[in-house]
Amino acid sequence: MRQTIGQFLDRPATRYTIMGVILFNAVILGLETSKPVMARAGGLITALDTACLAIFVAELLVKLYARGLRFFRDAWNIFDFLVVGIALVPATGALSVLRALRILRLLRVISVAPTLRRVVEGFVSALPGMASVFLLMGVIFYIAAVIATKLFAATFPEWFGTLGASLYSLFQIMTLESWSMGIVRPVMEVHSEAWIFFVPFILITTFAVVNLVVGLIVNSMQDAHAEESNAATDTYRDEVLNRLRAIEKQLENRS
Amino acid sequence: MRQTIGQFLDRPATRYTIMGVILFNAVILGLETSKPVMARAGGLITALDTACLAIFVAELLVKLYARGLRFFRDAWNIFDFLVVGIALVPATGALSVLRALRILRLLRVISVAPTLRRVVEGFVSALPGMASVFLLMGVIFYIAAVIATKLFAATFPEWFGTLGASLYSLFQIMTLESWSMGIVRPVMEVHSEAWIFFVPFILITTFAVVNLVVGLIVNSMQDAHAEESNAATDTYRDEVLNRLRAIEKQLENRS
Amino acid sequence: MRQTIGQFLDRPATRYTIMGVILFNAVILGLETSKPVMARAGGLITALDTACLAIFVAELLVKLYARGLRFFRDAWNIFDFLVVGIALVPATGALSVLRALRILRLLRVISVAPTLRRVVEGFVSALPGMASVFLLMGVIFYIAAVIATKLFAATFPEWFGTLGASLYSLFQIMTLESWSMGIVRPVMEVHSEAWIFFVPFILITTFAVVNLVVGLIVNSMQDAHAEESNAATDTYRDEVLNRLRAIEKQLENRS
Amino acid sequence: MRQTIGQFLDRPATRYTIMGVILFNAVILGLETSKPVMARAGGLITALDTACLAIFVAELLVKLYARGLRFFRDAWNIFDFLVVGIALVPATGALSVLRALRILRLLRVISVAPTLRRVVEGFVSALPGMASVFLLMGVIFYIAAVIATKLFAATFPEWFGTLGASLYSLFQIMTLESWSMGIVRPVMEVHSEAWIFFVPFILITTFAVVNLVVGLIVNSMQDAHAEESNAATDTYRDEVLNRLRAIEKQLENRS
Repeated sequence: MRQTIGQFLDRPATRYTIMGVILFNAVILGLETSKPVMARAGGLITALDTACLAIFVAELLVKLYARGLRFFRDAWNIFDFLVVGIALVPATGALSVLRALRILRLLRVISVAPTLRRVVEGFVSALPGMASVFLLMGVIFYIAAVIATKLFAATFPEWFGTLGASLYSLFQIMTLESWSMGIVRPVMEVHSEAWIFFVPFILITTFAVVNLVVGLIVNSMQDAHAEESNAATDTYRDEVLNRLRAIEKQLENRS
Repeated sequence: MRQTIGQFLDRPATRYTIMGVILFNAVILGLETSKPVMARAGGLITALDTACLAIFVAELLVKLYARGLRFFRDAWNIFDFLVVGIALVPATGALSVLRALRILRLLRVISVAPTLRRVVEGFVSALPGMASVFLLMGVIFYIAAVIATKLFAATFPEWFGTLGASLYSLFQIMTLESWSMGIVRPVMEVHSEAWIFFVPFILITTFAVVNLVVGLIVNSMQDAHAEESNAATDTYRDEVLNRLRAIEKQLENRS
Repeated sequence: MRQTIGQFLDRPATRYTIMGVILFNAVILGLETSKPVMARAGGLITALDTACLAIFVAELLVKLYARGLRFFRDAWNIFDFLVVGIALVPATGALSVLRALRILRLLRVISVAPTLRRVVEGFVSALPGMASVFLLMGVIFYIAAVIATKLFAATFPEWFGTLGASLYSLFQIMTLESWSMGIVRPVMEVHSEAWIFFVPFILITTFAVVNLVVGLIVNSMQDAHAEESNAATDTYRDEVLNRLRAIEKQLENRS
Repeated sequence: MRQTIGQFLDRPATRYTIMGVILFNAVILGLETSKPVMARAGGLITALDTACLAIFVAELLVKLYARGLRFFRDAWNIFDFLVVGIALVPATGALSVLRALRILRLLRVISVAPTLRRVVEGFVSALPGMASVFLLMGVIFYIAAVIATKLFAATFPEWFGTLGASLYSLFQIMTLESWSMGIVRPVMEVHSEAWIFFVPFILITTFAVVNLVVGLIVNSMQDAHAEESNAATDTYRDEVLNRLRAIEKQLENRS
């Protein structure tokens, strides 16, 4: 029984149907943002959205039944479980913001389409190699935020009033958005030497980001390199060594 | 007859003449944007522009006659057909904006100059490899736009009032243009936790863009690598294997 | 005696303890930036901070005693010495800004954690290869700053009044922050040909930065390449040559 | 006589002296931008500057005499000739802006220092490979500028009033500086569909710039690759082939 259901779920037809429901749901959720459409056909749209959600929940429950606890061994199943689960949390009162997050269930399109799945898996697999640089950037950001808060909290409370505000402002400065005209020039009107803090901060964080990108490139290159060239090279090398060994053996046998 | 015309079109002299007409037309269309020049010699310039257009149309018709339906097998011919065709659409009333698009016929310079042709072909050939990342970014943008519209449409209708406005604003944020001072800081004055939405959006989309560039680099490297090194390596490997086989044969013959 | 202490310092347990103190100190220094926390428990926090500092000083003194003058041969020890030293300078009067720099002692986390250490060492080792491009950029910046000061000091004293102000403004322009709307368009309202100076400056400095990044990528690639592929290749090549030499010898012996 | 002078010019001591004069002149020209310094010692500084210039002119004349017409075969000599020449043009009336360009003679530091020379030669040697992409970007910019002028000249004369103004604004948009908040959003208030022109323009030009950078990386990699690995590989391959030929010969001789 479980097996039959499992096979049914693995069929391409089932996957395409789910994909269709996701895309249909995407359109429905898009229409939900339009006021005139909601005024004319709000009831229908809400009903269709609930129907789509019901299909997702049903599919998940069936999958959960078919796979049992193995269901949770696949990270993508947990992903599906979470993005559908968010849509079921009652979104009232303080949690009303969760209503906007219901759209996250469209992320299921990633777990259903193998192409997108592979891209996301590629992204995620690149993260561990970047962990130590991220850690270093975290240290730099924390230290810089404490210094900025200590120096500028009194004079520029909006940008550097708390540790959180400083972290946000420093993130903005790292992206180079309005760093000078928006932040550093006004700060320098009060603390004229503030550039001694900000310019090195920009140089160091930019350099760290560049190193992240360089690391990504080098890793991708090595993966691509290893995949491609080695197959042909290994075959060739094995053949050369085998032939050399055969010649040596023949010479030894004869002598 | 058709063949003679075809050969005539393929001659370098013909191509250089067309190139000359395009460049002359470029100057004419540039002068058309200058009010003082149009005031003094508007009639002449319009006449010369029409003459250039006539030459383009004539060339296309001759080519169409010489090649027959094979004409449409070459993507560059279709490209020429379209950019010249735009200039012939009557540009009155609602379509008056098409008048500005007439200048697109200068794009013919790309199909005529082999160097530019190769660059554009290189660009276009890189696109399919980026398709899945583009698709993923489309999904992310759509979901983010629906969330942003749901959360901020009421308070910031100018930026997030409709799905289209949100998509445009999120594109602006992805390019990092005024993302903080222009958009997120004002939004945070009303929704103080808005950075929870925007900062991850920036990190994810920037990371996706970086991955696109990394993919481009790796692909170009592999193409360059395959082209360059393999010719010499293949010759060498063939020679080594041939000599080894010859030695083995000699040894076998003798025993 | 010295040796026993040296071994004690090298033990993982000691390192983890120091790491713990650093992280605890990081939290303390973070809390110090919060006004409500300082109002309620300022005395305790200052005391804990002083305790952490005392531990750092004690550790450094012990290390200094154990290692003697060899202590200063390791760049990381000098680094620790400086960042802890800053916290001991009396921060009164004109030097009150040093109080904010006390947080720099958290940088010790880098010298204690081997992962972060390696990242920073990677960054620093990349710098010498970039020295000549940095030198060139220094020359370009200096010349551009003198020209900008001569041309625009009278009309735009805020941005180009002194050599220092010009250097800062040019750095801002190189990062592309508000270069046009913020600086060049206002300047062009007075000096209408100012773009002849600024646009080439942007192109040249951006090109130099791109070349820095390209250099970084090529270097990292070569390091990675050399590390990875050569081990297998060298083994293979040695084996081929050894076998060939053996065959030649056998043939010579027999003749 | 000519030869003796030529040898004298090639001596390291001479080069270091000239380098010293350039650096001294750099300081002098930097001091010239400071009003208080000029008020106190303006005469001395102007005199020292003239002295430096005299040395440069003398050196160039001596070199010109020693080398004869071969002087102009080296691009760096022509470079020196031009940057020193600019300082001699009388800078009065309409040409008073040339006074600011006198500082360009400090660029001589590049032709004197071999390290900087090599960096600049590396930059310049990368340009030809980028020529076709630059050409394509020129075509795109010209066409986009004509379209922008035709569409927006009437409503936004400041940004798109003339072909030149449009080119400058499009360059600003390509660098992403204030493209949306500064230019496109205001334009969209009048022409609500203007994003159809600007967003593709940004995507295409950014993509072209990325391709330029990718091309640079691939070229540098190939140069580095060719330099490094081939020496060892070629030696190895020659040895393998020679040994194989020797074995074949021995076998043939014996049969």
